[in-house]
Amino acid sequence: MLDVADRLAIHEVVGLYGHLLDDREWSRLGEVFTDDAVFDGRPAGGTVTRTLDELRDHFSGDELQHPLAHHATNIVVYEESGVVRVVSKGIAVGYRGRVGSIVYRDVVRRTEAGWRLAERVVLLRLPSSSDATE
Amino acid sequence: MLDVADRLAIHEVVGLYGHLLDDREWSRLGEVFTDDAVFDGRPAGGTVTRTLDELRDHFSGDELQHPLAHHATNIVVYEESGVVRVVSKGIAVGYRGRVGSIVYRDVVRRTEAGWRLAERVVLLRLPSSSDATE
Amino acid sequence: MLDVADRLAIHEVVGLYGHLLDDREWSRLGEVFTDDAVFDGRPAGGTVTRTLDELRDHFSGDELQHPLAHHATNIVVYEESGVVRVVSKGIAVGYRGRVGSIVYRDVVRRTEAGWRLAERVVLLRLPSSSDATE
Repeated sequence: MLDVADRLAIHEVVGLYGHLLDDREWSRLGEVFTDDAVFDGRPAGGTVTRTLDELRDHFSGDELQHPLAHHATNIVVYEESGVVRVVSKGIAVGYRGRVGSIVYRDVVRRTEAGWRLAERVVLLRLPSSSDATE
Repeated sequence: MLDVADRLAIHEVVGLYGHLLDDREWSRLGEVFTDDAVFDGRPAGGTVTRTLDELRDHFSGDELQHPLAHHATNIVVYEESGVVRVVSKGIAVGYRGRVGSIVYRDVVRRTEAGWRLAERVVLLRLPSSSDATE
Repeated sequence: MLDVADRLAIHEVVGLYGHLLDDREWSRLGEVFTDDAVFDGRPAGGTVTRTLDELRDHFSGDELQHPLAHHATNIVVYEESGVVRVVSKGIAVGYRGRVGSIVYRDVVRRTEAGWRLAERVVLLRLPSSSDATE
């Protein structure tokens, strides 16, 4: 059962992700993810990594082009069958001031060091076929 | 009197709004709004609805063009003469990666199912006449 | 030692900043800043002010061009050697719908009226030289 301190701590972990990524603080990624975290960027056209070390390599690699900044919004924490899940949104700011909209679906886990993401699935928010285009 | 659990629950309801809207989960709108919620989009050039059913019809109707995504920020909860109010900001992401800035003025009410928006007024953030244009 | 009510109150002060700025509510700036607050915009190409009165004059002055809106995200509160610090991000929305990404580094202090920013340093998020451009 989550109390409000847990919930706010989870909000901050989701927020910290953007700071670490944008500041390229790869050595601090363990403050956000568990050691065995699965990061699944495939729904957004990316790749999947299955440990924190793999994720660190992936994020710090030359082949990956990061947006200018990652802004976290719409953080909602909920429990489902004993699993703590988070859905949130991200705004990826591009180098020319345009943005993309992301949805994150996370599983979080309480560790001795605090709440961490054990699983993150990244989805791009794309127009549905029934949406008019601007 | 609001405690911190109430306040954080209200933050999450304001955040959930964007998820439901962007995912077209109209059947779940009752997780955000009371049955008698008044949604007033007139200050942003929209219309007003006076029940949850009306709002659902309005949101799901063909005539309404939704932005790509709704991101909630700057959520501030306060009490005023026994009424719980929220002011927040929204970023509406357009299909070409440009954004609009929104202000939401809400009245929230505690229901048996949790905190819900009983009133939402939507304002577009527009330049004041004294602001220089970019 | 911070409890969760303190932390959420600090989140809301960081959020309130954008409302007051964008609504030009200069008389309410004392709800966000201490009287002796140092606001350092130099890392973002701006100026430094050393009291609330100076900041109010600076913000309300004709020479300063504000963006259309200030959206606060990624708020993380932490204690360091007895000082309460906050790191957050901001999205500055421009008049043509493009955005800039900001990082705020704050020191906050508990006052009789509640938590206030005693120091705010404003940094623009700029591409590192190793980042590819879009």
